[in-house]
Amino acid sequence: MNEFDIIADYFRILTMGRAECAGLQDDAAVLSIPPGRELVVSTDTLNAGTHFLKNETPENIARKALRVNLSDLAASGADPLCYQLSMAYPQKPQAEWLAAFTGALLEDQKIFGIFCSGGDTTSIHGGVLSVSMTVLGTVPAGKALRRGGARAGDTIVLTGSVGDAALGLHAVWNGREAAYPKAVARHRLPVPRLAAVETVRNHAHAAVDISDGLLADLGHICEASHLAAEIRLAGGGSEGGLVLSDEVHMALLSAEMKMEDVLSGGDDYELVLAVAPDHLASLLAGLRKLSIPAQVIGRFMAGAPGVTVLDPAGTKLTLKAHGWQHF
Amino acid sequence: MNEFDIIADYFRILTMGRAECAGLQDDAAVLSIPPGRELVVSTDTLNAGTHFLKNETPENIARKALRVNLSDLAASGADPLCYQLSMAYPQKPQAEWLAAFTGALLEDQKIFGIFCSGGDTTSIHGGVLSVSMTVLGTVPAGKALRRGGARAGDTIVLTGSVGDAALGLHAVWNGREAAYPKAVARHRLPVPRLAAVETVRNHAHAAVDISDGLLADLGHICEASHLAAEIRLAGGGSEGGLVLSDEVHMALLSAEMKMEDVLSGGDDYELVLAVAPDHLASLLAGLRKLSIPAQVIGRFMAGAPGVTVLDPAGTKLTLKAHGWQHF
Repeated sequence: MNEFDIIADYFRILTMGRAECAGLQDDAAVLSIPPGRELVVSTDTLNAGTHFLKNETPENIARKALRVNLSDLAASGADPLCYQLSMAYPQKPQAEWLAAFTGALLEDQKIFGIFCSGGDTTSIHGGVLSVSMTVLGTVPAGKALRRGGARAGDTIVLTGSVGDAALGLHAVWNGREAAYPKAVARHRLPVPRLAAVETVRNHAHAAVDISDGLLADLGHICEASHLAAEIRLAGGGSEGGLVLSDEVHMALLSAEMKMEDVLSGGDDYELVLAVAPDHLASLLAGLRKLSIPAQVIGRFMAGAPGVTVLDPAGTKLTLKAHGWQHF
Repeated sequence: MNEFDIIADYFRILTMGRAECAGLQDDAAVLSIPPGRELVVSTDTLNAGTHFLKNETPENIARKALRVNLSDLAASGADPLCYQLSMAYPQKPQAEWLAAFTGALLEDQKIFGIFCSGGDTTSIHGGVLSVSMTVLGTVPAGKALRRGGARAGDTIVLTGSVGDAALGLHAVWNGREAAYPKAVARHRLPVPRLAAVETVRNHAHAAVDISDGLLADLGHICEASHLAAEIRLAGGGSEGGLVLSDEVHMALLSAEMKMEDVLSGGDDYELVLAVAPDHLASLLAGLRKLSIPAQVIGRFMAGAPGVTVLDPAGTKLTLKAHGWQHF
């Protein structure tokens, strides 16, 4: 089984028979972009020992790689088109591993409406498994969401909740899976908010997905939009603010997790949106109709780029960690 | 210097200030594809210790990564648009290394007319440096060249010569750089045949670039086109056939290289074309006008997919190696 056999036997099926991909027998895929639409491109790479445990199952690696890339399309307001897949193997992969990996990709492709357009299969002697994807999507021309589009006075909306993936990772590391099953599932298998794409691009000024942590990614919007942001924690009888999931709340109460970890833990792949006040009701109604949970957690304002966190009483918190960094 | 600093200080300049890339501050790039054109996408990944020596200079790694990707665009008849760059570092990269790497990319971007649209910067703990690129180009709709387009009776045309990169690698490994300077240069710095793109898409039925070796890549056209191919070696007073470079010829005579190595050595990044006989003169004239060397080396015919090699007297050769494989 050489690289050509691997491609023919396992990866070709991921093209779903599309002529654009020429059965992965060509140097390149040739794709039509529908008139009136723009192309959206993003790349995310996952490395063994850094982004996933070295003994992680092939199914979970496959799904996570595809989903974190799809999450970037969601944050751009783009509909999925196709993806390129580069796999670098430290040793020759086993047939069972490949079957499980590509089988999981194929299932997810059907769920999210995307196909594999090509890629590269290489060996990485003395290295570790590296999975790099470049995902392509399309948006109606001029409708892509950018990080730099937020305006002073915009409301900050969060889909779902934050801190869950960080708690899941903590639970896996510390044998606490049984206590935090939902958080472990979120860590293992993020759900890109692609279902929200149309609603979000109709009603939001800016969006980012939470891969580096709420504070860091919200900070990215602040920098790109030249704005300050303020988020407020819910609780203590006051109305509004950031509500946590039951498991994350429990982990905070039992001191298994600190608020820093919640606000700076990465990998949640929820969306943070900047929404003009007069679009807020429509956005929330649209998301509710799609059964996508969402909450108002703060607002953007003029000021030096940066995120302020207020406790339920409105007192400014001082936090240490600010998100995942590679170096 | 964290990953965001690295991106801002070294990689942002590679976007050449294009608004599509939002200064690499966004999750994705948003690109317009000109009306009437199709998108061509290809991915090539280079890993330290496998595709380049671990002590290779950053400039050579950068140029090789970009150029082998551009070669796939050339083989598809596509004009360059942009590329995504994923870098996985085993340890925090040094400022000098990054400056040299991105400086070389920027120079090549100007030569070949392409910009960096985005990518990913990751750490790969316990691994080795991995550089993955996905290159995007465009072609007039319906004009992309595919491997499956060759027809029985088509002439096989080769740009430049083959075996030179393999000889260069041999020379580097064996301290013979001084004897084979041109071959070493070819090994270090391939020249993608992008200048030939328009001529080739106007006159060829099919194309492939030689990354895996002449026999292997010509074999790919045979398989995709369901044809047999025959190539003939020049020499002994007979007319036509595959002519080798002076250095490769010398290496054969001195037994430093075998004919198998010439025909199956990868990394030449020349184009192999299938050309209808009535287009041959126009193709060769077009390439001559562009100062791109080209030679007729054989023909396609009906038959089981596979490549036959004839010596100058027309006798079939039996060869062992058939090209680079990863496993």
